[in-house]
Amino acid sequence: MRKNWLSTNVAVVGEFDVITRYFSSLGSGEFVDLSVGDDAAALTVPPNSELIVSTDSSVLDTHFTDDVFPEDVGYKAVASAVSDLAAMGAEPLGMTLALTMPSVDDLWLHGLSQGLARGCHEYRLPLVGGDTTRGPLSLTLTVMGFCPRGEKLLRSEARVGDKICVSGCLGDAAFGLSVMQGNYRGSEVDVDDQEYLVGRFTHPKARLDLGCRLRQHATSCIDLSDGLLQDAAHVANASGVRFSIHSAAIPLSTALVSAVGEALALEYALSGGEDYELLFTLPPDSDVPDEVSVIGAVETGEGVYCDVMSREQGYDHFH
Amino acid sequence: MRKNWLSTNVAVVGEFDVITRYFSSLGSGEFVDLSVGDDAAALTVPPNSELIVSTDSSVLDTHFTDDVFPEDVGYKAVASAVSDLAAMGAEPLGMTLALTMPSVDDLWLHGLSQGLARGCHEYRLPLVGGDTTRGPLSLTLTVMGFCPRGEKLLRSEARVGDKICVSGCLGDAAFGLSVMQGNYRGSEVDVDDQEYLVGRFTHPKARLDLGCRLRQHATSCIDLSDGLLQDAAHVANASGVRFSIHSAAIPLSTALVSAVGEALALEYALSGGEDYELLFTLPPDSDVPDEVSVIGAVETGEGVYCDVMSREQGYDHFH
Repeated sequence: MRKNWLSTNVAVVGEFDVITRYFSSLGSGEFVDLSVGDDAAALTVPPNSELIVSTDSSVLDTHFTDDVFPEDVGYKAVASAVSDLAAMGAEPLGMTLALTMPSVDDLWLHGLSQGLARGCHEYRLPLVGGDTTRGPLSLTLTVMGFCPRGEKLLRSEARVGDKICVSGCLGDAAFGLSVMQGNYRGSEVDVDDQEYLVGRFTHPKARLDLGCRLRQHATSCIDLSDGLLQDAAHVANASGVRFSIHSAAIPLSTALVSAVGEALALEYALSGGEDYELLFTLPPDSDVPDEVSVIGAVETGEGVYCDVMSREQGYDHFH
Repeated sequence: MRKNWLSTNVAVVGEFDVITRYFSSLGSGEFVDLSVGDDAAALTVPPNSELIVSTDSSVLDTHFTDDVFPEDVGYKAVASAVSDLAAMGAEPLGMTLALTMPSVDDLWLHGLSQGLARGCHEYRLPLVGGDTTRGPLSLTLTVMGFCPRGEKLLRSEARVGDKICVSGCLGDAAFGLSVMQGNYRGSEVDVDDQEYLVGRFTHPKARLDLGCRLRQHATSCIDLSDGLLQDAAHVANASGVRFSIHSAAIPLSTALVSAVGEALALEYALSGGEDYELLFTLPPDSDVPDEVSVIGAVETGEGVYCDVMSREQGYDHFH
């Protein structure tokens, strides 16, 4: 713990200590030995496991605007951070929160804590420690999990001949963002579809359980945060192979296709980010899990190939 | 990993990826299985150990001003975060960095990376992962370490009769900050003393080795970030005891006493923060390590008692 370099005002420290009260109820769990309140937290990593750790920041005016509900900021911060654990095939251990705020806003904090709590419970990830600071609004979550030794999923082990697989439907989140920003293209969108699509952006689901089931099966894995083509390129480059993707096999939701038609839906799927689905490779003779689509095959070569052109930047970038 | 909620600009992502190049050389170490470059990092926690984890943010205009050298920002961010591991008696494993910057400033980043590198090497704490984001300047470090199971040092186990001990000299950092801010009281300060005192603020030493040596010996421990009286109160309250401190036994540097005289030096020691020394308790019959002073005894009761009054807020607050 440290205090302010510029101020030694006890009142400020006391005021910010209040914030921990919003979050201290989220700190217990199977692997937690010591939670919020000492110099650091203590966790048990099960024997013969590796610790898996990832850090993600959410910054006002970069990742969210000030009209986003604090519940949504909190929930999405957890889900997007947990998604990295999912991509490694990790089981959840716990997380820490560094929260920077210009002042203590009880209403906003209450909302944030509700969203964080929902994420904590859904992903079995207790909040075991943190730091609260005065400054421009941002959250940094560090999520920790574990994998049996040698079973973590990497980006670098895709092999020629593997099936390229993806969970869920793609493109919904990027279109949901367009709806929120009031600049989506296409005809009017059905109200229920619109709610579903916006929800896919504001409340993504991290595929933690699927990630765990893929251990000992998938040869590589990544979560889709930057868009299918970009993330596929990360895996292809790390593995020294080429990802060949069949556009007709890319899973699209009926809501998205209804909203914008198939061609534009495909563009959102190829280049839109934030779906937080898993992109992974399976050996040719492997069974494919439920709710997973095979969208192509790993070939010799490099980069990503897809049979359609896209007007979007992400696609051209890797074609 | 996640991208920007507001922008899907590939150039921005690419630009910020450059930053990882500044830090990727810092990522190897004894316990690191997988460093920067995949969805998450992987570390080995030794058998029969607990994972110890703490998060600390450094925010522009709250923790540092824009005229602080980026080397100093980086080094101090590491040292102050590591100090929490020291207070737990933990051995270092690794750390992650979440860096938020308004734009990519190569000169500043180079300096920051130099300071971080110095901290990484000094404390044997490789930088295994991170996140770079556009936004107001701040760093959040999450430090991870380990303790043999059951040996971590807590705030809550000080016992009546224990000796109250502190490492090093106190008050130097708070006075160093006063010098930097141009508002120190007292006569002119010797140039060498001034350099030493400012250095105690800008380049604190986390007592990682001492913390490890205290395992199985100290009954409680905390690092001094908020000032002796405040931090002593944290331990006293957590342990349900009273800390009785003899002012004459509080270690003061000759530089500080020369600069401001003994009475004011004592005030800095009691109420000034950021020394990052360890305050701990030892059973009555324990040997006292080198460079450690016994400053009082644990008694029945509550709070902190000291035999001198202080004009500073921190002291009155707990008297």
